[in-house]
Amino acid sequence: MSIKKRILGIDPGFDRTGFGIVDMKGSGAIWVHHECVQTHPADTFSARLQTVRDRLQNVLTLYTPTHVAVEQLFFQTNAKTAMKVGMARGVILLTLADAKLPIIEMTPNQVKQGIAGWGRADKKQVQQMVQMLLKLKSKPTPDDASDALAIAIVGGLMVR
Amino acid sequence: MSIKKRILGIDPGFDRTGFGIVDMKGSGAIWVHHECVQTHPADTFSARLQTVRDRLQNVLTLYTPTHVAVEQLFFQTNAKTAMKVGMARGVILLTLADAKLPIIEMTPNQVKQGIAGWGRADKKQVQQMVQMLLKLKSKPTPDDASDALAIAIVGGLMVR
Repeated sequence: MSIKKRILGIDPGFDRTGFGIVDMKGSGAIWVHHECVQTHPADTFSARLQTVRDRLQNVLTLYTPTHVAVEQLFFQTNAKTAMKVGMARGVILLTLADAKLPIIEMTPNQVKQGIAGWGRADKKQVQQMVQMLLKLKSKPTPDDASDALAIAIVGGLMVR
Repeated sequence: MSIKKRILGIDPGFDRTGFGIVDMKGSGAIWVHHECVQTHPADTFSARLQTVRDRLQNVLTLYTPTHVAVEQLFFQTNAKTAMKVGMARGVILLTLADAKLPIIEMTPNQVKQGIAGWGRADKKQVQQMVQMLLKLKSKPTPDDASDALAIAIVGGLMVR
């Protein structure tokens, strides 16, 4: 009997955070769910962080993933943007630690390499591979949710 | 009868977060407490964020501040540092929002202006003014805790 591996991939952001969930079966990934949390620009910073945390807790309760995969964010060049994404990322890591879920961290290049077999694959190639690997009839939208699915698939391969 | 105003000032950081608490009496500030949370470099990111949250919750329980003052972090130039400080800041804002505490945000220049009467005062001048205003026998240490006291004093003047 094999133990089920259900991976939640997260693409963290302050404005939008993507969630993507897949089940691993051998080396294949089966689509379970994807969504994107959009926080409201009129809300305070703190309220927006609460939204991200609440929606993440909701996803954890509804889909009960066994592992969580999160991208490491090396690529931010703007300090102001990095600070904001960092705030969302901090809240996400805290919530996952509270839920005692194992976290798989990966670089953007590892995601591209894992999905498209090529560390410099572009966003569109990654999205096409996600659609193909998960046998979806159309491209998962929005981009943040598609990226989260890519992160989940690569996370699943890493814990195999 | 005047309602008591007890201000918690926070100087957020990933490695070290300073807490400083003052009571406001008219336009004067009375020292209550200061401390610095140092997170352990050997811990995971998530565990360090939990430490910051747990210690903040502890301070809220022990000292029951009525307001919280946090510095806005415009000054980070390095994206990697900004991301890490952002993670701690996100966790702090989330914890304060959960505790339903009013948050006073201020710029670094407002802190210097409020304490030393001069937006370009240096770190040492601010520390000397904190010691003098709070009638302390020695300079509060470490620097993060002293900065947090400065933030608390200016926050107290802003909610008067």
